[in-house]
Amino acid sequence: MESQTSKAIQFRQLHRGPGVLILPNAWDAASARIFEEAGFPAIATTSAGIDFSLGYPGQHTPREEMMARIGRIARAVRVPVTADVESGYGSTPEDAARTTRELIQAGVAGMNLEDGSGDPARPLIDFQLAIEKIKAARVAAMQMHAQIVINARTDVFLLPGGNPDADYSEALRRLLAFRDAGADCVFAPGLKDAETIGRMAKAVECPLNILAGPGTPSIPELKKLGVARVSVGAGPMRATLGLLRRIAEELKTSGTYSAMEGAVPYAEVNKLFGG
Amino acid sequence: MESQTSKAIQFRQLHRGPGVLILPNAWDAASARIFEEAGFPAIATTSAGIDFSLGYPGQHTPREEMMARIGRIARAVRVPVTADVESGYGSTPEDAARTTRELIQAGVAGMNLEDGSGDPARPLIDFQLAIEKIKAARVAAMQMHAQIVINARTDVFLLPGGNPDADYSEALRRLLAFRDAGADCVFAPGLKDAETIGRMAKAVECPLNILAGPGTPSIPELKKLGVARVSVGAGPMRATLGLLRRIAEELKTSGTYSAMEGAVPYAEVNKLFGG
Repeated sequence: MESQTSKAIQFRQLHRGPGVLILPNAWDAASARIFEEAGFPAIATTSAGIDFSLGYPGQHTPREEMMARIGRIARAVRVPVTADVESGYGSTPEDAARTTRELIQAGVAGMNLEDGSGDPARPLIDFQLAIEKIKAARVAAMQMHAQIVINARTDVFLLPGGNPDADYSEALRRLLAFRDAGADCVFAPGLKDAETIGRMAKAVECPLNILAGPGTPSIPELKKLGVARVSVGAGPMRATLGLLRRIAEELKTSGTYSAMEGAVPYAEVNKLFGG
Repeated sequence: MESQTSKAIQFRQLHRGPGVLILPNAWDAASARIFEEAGFPAIATTSAGIDFSLGYPGQHTPREEMMARIGRIARAVRVPVTADVESGYGSTPEDAARTTRELIQAGVAGMNLEDGSGDPARPLIDFQLAIEKIKAARVAAMQMHAQIVINARTDVFLLPGGNPDADYSEALRRLLAFRDAGADCVFAPGLKDAETIGRMAKAVECPLNILAGPGTPSIPELKKLGVARVSVGAGPMRATLGLLRRIAEELKTSGTYSAMEGAVPYAEVNKLFGG
């Protein structure tokens, strides 16, 4: 617990450093260790990557299985881990509080809490409820005399259809309210346009997280735009699935192995795990 | 159980088809689904890939965790799954029998049983004990009125140092004894030289499995040499770790995302899991 809280404090400070905080997203112990070994000061999880790795469609992993996987990732590395826990596994603020307590017990330093419902008919949860969940998470940590970095996410830019101007206003209204409810950082995945990112980074007046990948500005550009934190979601996980498809295709057609070249040697991977 | 046995029978027949049986090795539900979707008629697991994915060095995953992961892979796909269970999780024939029963209960169609001990001081288990383990696995399936395809592996060619001629004789002696003890297929990982592979394929007089990858003959060449079954071990898993290193390096240096291109789109992965 002491180590959890010192990691949370260290992780919070990383949001206020001179550079951009780059968080690669892991979905199992191996991906987490590879990213830690590459020198990142903290690691995020990807709930979608974990869903797929466990054999579920997006947002369908039961709480217990998600928590078990997050705990395994947190135990695999020494750097702070921030967990993507979707909308907190349940429809009430108490559910978000319970999730927060379980994360702290698992040694996790930060959490993403989103206002997406997973219900296509009503994709955003009620504004006031989203605020209450963030407050409940913050209070849950305080009651444990622990710290946890809350990254509050709005899914406004992920909704189908939509009007960029109306979306911006609604997203900003939500992010400001989430910040005021106790979030340390705010997150607007789906925001890709450089000019809008720059406007949002100024307007929120707290650290802003951008989901980066092919089609978004580069990290040096995001830095210039005032972005404090960059994560990559399920991008790396889905990239490994693309590689597996290429390996499979080559095995089935020419029966050769060039897509498998560039593999990390067995002895080297083994060493990452103390073998 | 009925479905398990019909899959085992179907899987055994695949060893006697006109072509080579190509088995890609999965370590989680996502890799298994990608391989199934690519059209392979059966899928193997990689114990080393599972070790790393769970955060253990090679050959250090506890039996329960390995079985849970194998069961999850078997549930994720419809095609037969053959499980790499190292030397059977325990030092006695009864341990190998218990492992066999658990695999059958989990719906698994085949198993790899190896004579490597995991102990560097005495890397091969006793010849007679290795034979007794194969017999115990065969009897365990019969007692359940079930079928399971046993791929018996010798680790002779993986030992450090060694003399190619002496290795060949010792490997052949072991594989013939394993075949006579009830193995459906025999496996000699580490064998890479085309001429020796051809000699071995003739000499064993039963299906021979070769571990393929960069540095081994291509699958069409292996077919010409008389090889019945080809698997790729932890090669694809270690290749994904190589890709993650390249993604990480690019994020940290240029701050761009080209190594993430070629990712399978979210909606497409989601569909693989019924989403």
